[in-house]
Amino acid sequence: MFHAKAYSAASATAPLAPTTIARREPTPHDVQLEILFCGICHSDLHTVRNEWSSLMSTVYPCVPGHEIVGRVTRVGSAVTKFAPGDLAAVGCLVDSDRTCPECKAGFEQFCPGQVLTYNAPDKHLGGVTYGGYSDGIVVDERFVLRVPSNLDLAGVAPLLCAGITTWSPLRHWGVTKGKKVGVVGIGGLGHMGVKFARALGAHVVAFTTSPSKKEDALRLGAHEAVVSRNADEMRKHAASFDFILDTVSAEHDLNAYVQLLRRDGTLTLVGAPERPSALAAFGLILGRRSISGSPIGGIPETQEMLDFCGKHGITADVEVIPVQKVNEAYERMLRSDVKYRFSIDMASLKAA
Amino acid sequence: MFHAKAYSAASATAPLAPTTIARREPTPHDVQLEILFCGICHSDLHTVRNEWSSLMSTVYPCVPGHEIVGRVTRVGSAVTKFAPGDLAAVGCLVDSDRTCPECKAGFEQFCPGQVLTYNAPDKHLGGVTYGGYSDGIVVDERFVLRVPSNLDLAGVAPLLCAGITTWSPLRHWGVTKGKKVGVVGIGGLGHMGVKFARALGAHVVAFTTSPSKKEDALRLGAHEAVVSRNADEMRKHAASFDFILDTVSAEHDLNAYVQLLRRDGTLTLVGAPERPSALAAFGLILGRRSISGSPIGGIPETQEMLDFCGKHGITADVEVIPVQKVNEAYERMLRSDVKYRFSIDMASLKAA
Repeated sequence: MFHAKAYSAASATAPLAPTTIARREPTPHDVQLEILFCGICHSDLHTVRNEWSSLMSTVYPCVPGHEIVGRVTRVGSAVTKFAPGDLAAVGCLVDSDRTCPECKAGFEQFCPGQVLTYNAPDKHLGGVTYGGYSDGIVVDERFVLRVPSNLDLAGVAPLLCAGITTWSPLRHWGVTKGKKVGVVGIGGLGHMGVKFARALGAHVVAFTTSPSKKEDALRLGAHEAVVSRNADEMRKHAASFDFILDTVSAEHDLNAYVQLLRRDGTLTLVGAPERPSALAAFGLILGRRSISGSPIGGIPETQEMLDFCGKHGITADVEVIPVQKVNEAYERMLRSDVKYRFSIDMASLKAA
Repeated sequence: MFHAKAYSAASATAPLAPTTIARREPTPHDVQLEILFCGICHSDLHTVRNEWSSLMSTVYPCVPGHEIVGRVTRVGSAVTKFAPGDLAAVGCLVDSDRTCPECKAGFEQFCPGQVLTYNAPDKHLGGVTYGGYSDGIVVDERFVLRVPSNLDLAGVAPLLCAGITTWSPLRHWGVTKGKKVGVVGIGGLGHMGVKFARALGAHVVAFTTSPSKKEDALRLGAHEAVVSRNADEMRKHAASFDFILDTVSAEHDLNAYVQLLRRDGTLTLVGAPERPSALAAFGLILGRRSISGSPIGGIPETQEMLDFCGKHGITADVEVIPVQKVNEAYERMLRSDVKYRFSIDMASLKAA
């Protein structure tokens, strides 16, 4: 065991504050990282404030963070994929049962024995896992990703959750050249959805409630941007989309987007509104349309995404902050006052 | 033009009553049928009572009926597929634009220019099309189906709507041997879903709110029957279904069925509840599950279904009634007091 600096919350109502946590000594299959950047995901805030207690209660102290990029400092004796000095990344998962059909297929995100990067039972040290708001972490190499060397590391961090969460459904539902693809919500996830869909060759239409975001959506790569509150603009796209990625977790009208799907089109939710949405069956029936959902991604597809980003020069648009500003960043995130993801520079934690 | 006997409604509140209607003389591509049986579909009642006015107002007089089976009595000079004396059938569609990509692909059910069998503009005679509660009908041969000779004709009639509406999604979503398939609601559509899913080789579980229907569901071919109001019974099937066909148009909890889908499973609605249903996003997201809808089917797949029925000896379970009992049958249908479809013996109309 060794100690790492971290930021943790002591309760659902406490601000995040500096602390020291225990990390395990690397086992033969483990990789130890010095964390350079960690993105701030809305899930961090939900967990810190115990807002998902119906799914999983938060255990305190809680160290969130699952958009981790860093440099390898130590490797266990059996590690083959990494050496000290390598860039590396860790996302939402640090372990799984490895033996189930999902794991064997590379779909660790569906493994019933998956271990989340934070707030999950820690079989090594007891208690719960601690995430990336820290200067170091130890993870089995099977759950550590290689990072292309040509990318800005602050912008790489959000790829590990916002990136893979949009990449996975775009790939699963076959987004490619010749497809018309919508992305609803231009935020942390949505701005990645636009970048990926464009780079995959699709005709990309961004949907936003904010007329002020239209120009930015085009800059991010959308061919068109639609203000979703404008019924006339929406109607022009009726029954024309192969696929729509809906990244909005605020309550909104799903049926309006179902109407924009062509026959056999799919609307996929990656944001989860707190309360159930009203779904009109006729919109699905008449065009054999689907509404689906998609969680994070598996390890092989996360690596595929990072490699794609290296090839296409894709990173998230980030505002880099010192860890001392994380509580302020949470408040700004709640107001959507970030373009488009906060990335914590962990050098600030060492300095603290 | 010639005249045919029929049963029509004069208004949304009038009972169906005997009448005489005009039918066109067969054009070179038309087939004239003597109607032998016509199934009673819930859509007939919705249309007669103008309950779908938000989608399509009913024009009166209204002659419903789109589960038509009969014998060819005359054919136009260019007809190649039928000869007088042949058994033949007509379903929900009597025409389409024939030139759009949907028609070219055999997906006439998605053609924007589709002509429904009743209550649709009739380009031949003006007014609206009249359906199968009649002793004869004239239809372009492209929309006339061949009927296997080994089947009970009263039980064939419902295949033209209840049959194809369940067959089409089972086939589209790849139901076959090795799949676990649920059918929700054991009524006109659901009992066909059970028969088809079983004959396609799936492991079939029927869901019903009526414990009294369990035994019948097993008789129809289900391997298991679950009372959906019993939470314990439901929980036993959590995350296990590849595909669930939901035939219920009464309001019910879709999320309970989403929870029964395995990863990448699909819940497909063929019944349309009047009001929107509450949909919880998390259930879709965590297992990458889908909810979709499916309408009727195209002409090629309707023929495929009829041929399959001939090969497997499948027909609907019907209660044969004389046309004079159609109003009473509507009231009984509203009480689900039919196992599982009424089929009108049109000989009764001739006798009237």
